[in-house]
Amino acid sequence: MTDIRMTLEEAHDLALKCLLKNGCDTENATAAADRMIQAERDMCHSHGLFRLPWYVSGVKSGRVNGTARPKVEKLASAVVKVDGDGGYAPLCQKVAHTHLATAARENGIAALALTNMFHIAAMWPETEALAEEGLCAIAVTASYPYVAPAGGIKALFGTNPMGFAWPRRDGPPMVFDQASSAMARGEIQIAARDGHDVPETAGIGPDGKATIDPNVVLQGAQLGFGGYKGASLAMMVELLAGPLIGEFLSLESEVDDAGLGGPPKGGEFMIALDPARFGDPDGFLDHGEKLFAAILEQEGARLPGERRFLNRKITPVEGIGIPKSLHAEILSLME
Amino acid sequence: MTDIRMTLEEAHDLALKCLLKNGCDTENATAAADRMIQAERDMCHSHGLFRLPWYVSGVKSGRVNGTARPKVEKLASAVVKVDGDGGYAPLCQKVAHTHLATAARENGIAALALTNMFHIAAMWPETEALAEEGLCAIAVTASYPYVAPAGGIKALFGTNPMGFAWPRRDGPPMVFDQASSAMARGEIQIAARDGHDVPETAGIGPDGKATIDPNVVLQGAQLGFGGYKGASLAMMVELLAGPLIGEFLSLESEVDDAGLGGPPKGGEFMIALDPARFGDPDGFLDHGEKLFAAILEQEGARLPGERRFLNRKITPVEGIGIPKSLHAEILSLME
Repeated sequence: MTDIRMTLEEAHDLALKCLLKNGCDTENATAAADRMIQAERDMCHSHGLFRLPWYVSGVKSGRVNGTARPKVEKLASAVVKVDGDGGYAPLCQKVAHTHLATAARENGIAALALTNMFHIAAMWPETEALAEEGLCAIAVTASYPYVAPAGGIKALFGTNPMGFAWPRRDGPPMVFDQASSAMARGEIQIAARDGHDVPETAGIGPDGKATIDPNVVLQGAQLGFGGYKGASLAMMVELLAGPLIGEFLSLESEVDDAGLGGPPKGGEFMIALDPARFGDPDGFLDHGEKLFAAILEQEGARLPGERRFLNRKITPVEGIGIPKSLHAEILSLME
Repeated sequence: MTDIRMTLEEAHDLALKCLLKNGCDTENATAAADRMIQAERDMCHSHGLFRLPWYVSGVKSGRVNGTARPKVEKLASAVVKVDGDGGYAPLCQKVAHTHLATAARENGIAALALTNMFHIAAMWPETEALAEEGLCAIAVTASYPYVAPAGGIKALFGTNPMGFAWPRRDGPPMVFDQASSAMARGEIQIAARDGHDVPETAGIGPDGKATIDPNVVLQGAQLGFGGYKGASLAMMVELLAGPLIGEFLSLESEVDDAGLGGPPKGGEFMIALDPARFGDPDGFLDHGEKLFAAILEQEGARLPGERRFLNRKITPVEGIGIPKSLHAEILSLME
């Protein structure tokens, strides 16, 4: 399939106009377009313009608030809550960023409860943004029931990613953002679409038996990465992004969606730490570099996120390609 | 092998006397004995009296301070540091507990940097103790280089466990405490001793190739659970328990040990959260129970730590058994 080539600016303009045409105001549309084009810039296409039709359909159906005004509240000296007013996550995260960073610098550590919003993006952008300012950041979010608990066979937890970012001496932060499940939901869906097998560790059928058939996994349940340990992490994420902040568990998001198949409504939980307020304000950066150097001196070893950072040097020069079919779909949404 | 049977009180008395006889003062000996007998109570024998000869040898060699006086310092309103004064972790953790809990209640979230101590125990006791008081807790610690980074073949990270505890409506908290590696170090050592194979996911040989021979893994490197994702977690733990708090990376602990094979010197990093200071003070407990109920209604599904909680109802009545050889070794240390 031939891709349609465009510059990052053109891609941003396309996303922005499409969202404005479909019920988003400038603030909400800009935040969502920024987020999608950040992903395209790093060639994370699955969080790029690919998401645009989903953003649009959520607002058009009236389920998602395209003119959301997130409300900031300080719950304790080191706890910030931002109510997303039923909109998409990007504006909520944008509004929250400075409040969380400030609380972390004041107290050494701070927590952020993002609630009442729809989350359909990766979490490296918000963690990376904090690490760009010298902070260390952790983020988790739940979704829909896809993953079985340890010993069980019914899907109960989301794929529940955890993002982590650490500031670096030179260049962009070290960032990872990984699901608690062995495979991403989208990878299994793509394997099913393309008729490929999945590894036996990816999931089980409705009978609880191991399978390499992605269709059977989609009817059954995904498994945590590394088995029960990944499932424990998924459960931790449910508790932090759900009961702790007064938001939906994955099983509650599914009920709320009522079979519409829209983006999951729920929360996100973040922690920011200011290493300058811990025991080694002058040394922590070089100390981290010592670890990274020891990793990178090994042949074949790599740091998470490396490919993204390479990609973002390429796309501003060479532009990006998006599938013709997606481009046509986006244009049809603007008629 | 016949076990020697004793009550928990007798086991505590034995540990306490042995430590007092070998250079620990009452405060340090009591904290370490408490910790070992907590493990025996829950039938976690690998963290019970099995560790006593190691506690003793560290103090006898002069490497570990048996009369340590941990020093508490407030680095920021939500950051507590406790310098362990070169002693074992249990006293340092005991001293730190209330300071961390208080800071978490005051600020909603707080961090604890435990430094300059020797850590050879599980981390569920300190996280569970916080959740017993209604808080949510996270703990991480590094050790010696045992685990290869993603894509690499040389051991660089510790098995780097993460502990997590969440308070429950009735009964003990939900607690897990799991290594970032696919297998615990001790499990691989035991497989080597007993001539058993290990799963291919456990580790690689010095040549980087997969192996099921535990001896080859011990010469090579362990792998993270679920592969590169476990390795990412291990790296996160290194950064939090090392550079963030100004303590050793696993590779530095190894240098510090200088081949003596003693317990690893380093730090532990903890976070405590007070759910009563977040968005759902009245509902979070029941909300968590809703998740646990959904897990437990699945046949075969289980919560982490369940077996320990069952065991702790048995051992106060039936006592514990320790191997004859270990008992003889402990007695010989008291001559």
